[in-house]
Amino acid sequence: MNRTFDSEVLLIEDNPNDAELTIRVIKKQVTGTKIHHLKDGEEAMNYIFDDNHQVHQHHIARIKVIFLDLKLPKIMGLEILKELKENQETALIPVIILSSSREDKDITTAYRYGVNGYIVKPVIFEEYAEAIQNAARYWLFTNETIRT
Amino acid sequence: MNRTFDSEVLLIEDNPNDAELTIRVIKKQVTGTKIHHLKDGEEAMNYIFDDNHQVHQHHIARIKVIFLDLKLPKIMGLEILKELKENQETALIPVIILSSSREDKDITTAYRYGVNGYIVKPVIFEEYAEAIQNAARYWLFTNETIRT
Repeated sequence: MNRTFDSEVLLIEDNPNDAELTIRVIKKQVTGTKIHHLKDGEEAMNYIFDDNHQVHQHHIARIKVIFLDLKLPKIMGLEILKELKENQETALIPVIILSSSREDKDITTAYRYGVNGYIVKPVIFEEYAEAIQNAARYWLFTNETIRT
Repeated sequence: MNRTFDSEVLLIEDNPNDAELTIRVIKKQVTGTKIHHLKDGEEAMNYIFDDNHQVHQHHIARIKVIFLDLKLPKIMGLEILKELKENQETALIPVIILSSSREDKDITTAYRYGVNGYIVKPVIFEEYAEAIQNAARYWLFTNETIRT
C-alpha cells in the first residue's frame, strides 16, 4: 500500500471553457500539480482501464482526486463513477462530480454509487472559480486517502 | 425530497481541545452555522437514532456534514459511520472522519464503509486550523447533497 503524497488530478470534462477554468484555478492553488484532462467518457475509461478491464496502474497510482462531469460524450459520468467504485483498485480514489445538473435524481444516484462529493457548477464565473478553489484546497491539501 | 441549504454541522468528538478549535474555526468561516457537538459514541447514536433504530428526523433534517472522530468512548467512530451509511435515511449525509490515526487499516475501512472524506488531524495548531478551514469551506459552501 502506498499513501499518495503527490497531487495528481484527473479531470474528465468535455466543455473546453469549464475545463480551462478548472485547470487554471487548481494550478493556481497547488503549484506543480499535474492535471490529466480527458475530454470524453470513452477516453477516460481507456485511460483508467485496459481492454481486459484491468487498471492501468501507472496511470492511476498518483491520482489524489478525480473531478468528473456527468454529461459526457460516448460514456456518461455516472457509468464511469460506477465502474470506479466497483473496482477494488480504484474504489478508494475520491471522485467528485462537477456538473451543471442539480437534479435530485443525479445527486442521489451519484451518492448511491459512492461518489465522495458533488459540486453543482455555479453559472457566475467568480462563483465557479471559488467552488473549484475550495474543492482543490480540501481534496488536494486536506483530505487523506490510500492506494491499495 | 428537500435540498439542504441550511448549514448545520454535527461534530462527534470527545477531545475537548480539538472540539473547541474545530467549532471556533467553523464558526469563523460560516457565520450563523449551528454546530451540534456530541461528546461520545453513545450520545451520537442516541441523537441520530431512537430506541427502535428509527432516525430522529428533526435532529438530522438540516445537517450538511458530519465530522466524526474515530476513537470515541462507548461506541467507536467506524461503527457509527457504518450505521449512518447503511441506513437509507442517513446514507446521503456527507461524513468526514477527523482522526489522529493515519493507519492504513483505519483509512481503508472508513472508505470501504462509505466515508466521504478523511482528515488526519495535524499536530501543529496552525495546520489543524487550516485543515478545518478547508474542510468547512468545501463541505459547507461548495458541496451539494440531498435529503431523501
